[in-house]
Amino acid sequence: MIENSYLYKEIHEQPAVLNKMMAAQEETITQLVAEINKRQITHVVIAGRGTSDNAGRYAQYLFGAKNGLVVSLATPSLFSIYNAPPRFQNALVLGISQSGKSPDIVAVLAEAQKQGALTAVITNNTQSDLAQAGDFVIDLCAGEELAVAATKTYTSELAAIALLSTKLADSAEMAAQLQEVGTAVSKTLSMNDTIAQIVPRYRYMSRCVVIGRGFNYATAFETALKMKELTYSIVESYSSADFLHGPMAVLEPSFPVLLIAPTGKMLPEMKEFAQVVKDKQVELIVLSDDDALLEMARIPLKLPTSVPEWLSPIVNIVPGQMFSMHLAYVRDFDVDSPRGLKKVTETR
Amino acid sequence: MIENSYLYKEIHEQPAVLNKMMAAQEETITQLVAEINKRQITHVVIAGRGTSDNAGRYAQYLFGAKNGLVVSLATPSLFSIYNAPPRFQNALVLGISQSGKSPDIVAVLAEAQKQGALTAVITNNTQSDLAQAGDFVIDLCAGEELAVAATKTYTSELAAIALLSTKLADSAEMAAQLQEVGTAVSKTLSMNDTIAQIVPRYRYMSRCVVIGRGFNYATAFETALKMKELTYSIVESYSSADFLHGPMAVLEPSFPVLLIAPTGKMLPEMKEFAQVVKDKQVELIVLSDDDALLEMARIPLKLPTSVPEWLSPIVNIVPGQMFSMHLAYVRDFDVDSPRGLKKVTETR
Repeated sequence: MIENSYLYKEIHEQPAVLNKMMAAQEETITQLVAEINKRQITHVVIAGRGTSDNAGRYAQYLFGAKNGLVVSLATPSLFSIYNAPPRFQNALVLGISQSGKSPDIVAVLAEAQKQGALTAVITNNTQSDLAQAGDFVIDLCAGEELAVAATKTYTSELAAIALLSTKLADSAEMAAQLQEVGTAVSKTLSMNDTIAQIVPRYRYMSRCVVIGRGFNYATAFETALKMKELTYSIVESYSSADFLHGPMAVLEPSFPVLLIAPTGKMLPEMKEFAQVVKDKQVELIVLSDDDALLEMARIPLKLPTSVPEWLSPIVNIVPGQMFSMHLAYVRDFDVDSPRGLKKVTETR
Repeated sequence: MIENSYLYKEIHEQPAVLNKMMAAQEETITQLVAEINKRQITHVVIAGRGTSDNAGRYAQYLFGAKNGLVVSLATPSLFSIYNAPPRFQNALVLGISQSGKSPDIVAVLAEAQKQGALTAVITNNTQSDLAQAGDFVIDLCAGEELAVAATKTYTSELAAIALLSTKLADSAEMAAQLQEVGTAVSKTLSMNDTIAQIVPRYRYMSRCVVIGRGFNYATAFETALKMKELTYSIVESYSSADFLHGPMAVLEPSFPVLLIAPTGKMLPEMKEFAQVVKDKQVELIVLSDDDALLEMARIPLKLPTSVPEWLSPIVNIVPGQMFSMHLAYVRDFDVDSPRGLKKVTETR
């Protein structure tokens, strides 16, 4: 019974975790924002691996669009292997990790502290080595995550980033919108049965691409990562623009293309892209709340609720989590313990 | 006859292009470095798509390791679609594009100029829109590139970045090493026949991963891009660390893993990684000049010459270009005009 898996339970815990984290961490994040403003931070460097790296991708767009900050994703090997760390100067250095244990990510934050840069950590383990290296520590408040594939810690990471962006922007409108995101995730969980009915179609799919751009670039990457971790299909993620610059050559009739395209400023671009790939007779799967775009799909996945685009990644990953889980189940794979993976990965 | 293709010719023109570009652009790059020093630039933002984005990945490691600069890869949609550009502050904004024509990349540079940031452009078309937006324009000097898949413009982009890093570091040692890179590329072209003999083995390979880390993270991405563009296999590229954080679940016996691992500080890490994937009975293909690592491979691709690690990406991409070309030829694909691609891709 899939319902008895940790993964299923943790996916369904997400609305409660989001609401708990936002209430519990508001004070810490407010203090962090005061320090960012005081130091007149000019740019942000983010270090994370796997799922947490995808949270960093979300932050790159959100801090850019809402807070005017240039965001760089760190190159941990410069710290941990080459011993040639760049100078952070007036940056905020942000470490993101569920476990807080990967030595290469800890190395980035430790160097930042040594240089006197402002550091913050988003983690589910406030006692971890990584947490020790943060001037500010934001607790994901997710409870223990027992499935190897991260779900509730990912959406909590995104919400922490959204709350930080909201406080930085000092925007009452954003704050009001963010309050509703737990409810929107709840509504999205209602897609579970529909998704369970659709996935047998993909029982023998060996490869696939997932496309998203802008705010949902992160969603494309995290959806692809869940699919790889859980279903062992090879799944590549791209922005639509990057895909057109070369990789599109791989397309042929029936090739599965999953498009993440909620309403928002990116939607017209996604519709154009959908037409380009439809012309190649691909199998087009669309996750959207826009009916016109859904009509273009061979397999439409209709989002039951609409949220502002900047928050949509917190909602839009949920169908991808469920799709990956159900497809793994259809393939008789262990959804809680994928082959070859451990919960904590320590890379140097 | 593959030798009559533009692609084959352009791959073989690389040593001459590199030497020509480095001689012709030294003066411009020296002037750019004077301006970078004068303005006390604190970080770099790079905008590029496809192959040029991979050149940006090289710059991220090189400017970090040799020049202490934090490098961010731009998010063009914040400029071209969301109209919410971040503030560049005291950054160098660097646009990289063979054609200089993609509107989203032009938008990043135009905004940077509007904000008064220092801008530079690396392009093969000094009359392009992108070149107009650069305070400094570095000419790739590659002559017209007629094959759709970029080869000589990629290595010329890398060499321009290497020359910029050398001048920024004001290092006579780096300058002397850089002078030899054209010769090293020449020697590496001698792998052509060996590679042509090996590739029929991969006639029916539908998927593959390419792994590199540190300086050769870019090489992994660009090798994978060439393989997708030319052979239509789905090929994913990863740093070894990112791969261990989840995607490794896709591995199963006979899964092809191509490891880019020349001598240098990253080599011990790559050897550990090779053992991890060997334990999963994958088909391990190794590109290296290290005999011990080559012995671990099912298919060793021995580099005929060794270069300093920071320059190795300019050399190490060449076997990947030839591998992709010969495999496309074995599959009876058009190596000069892959399906679905045009030479100039204009994304918004």
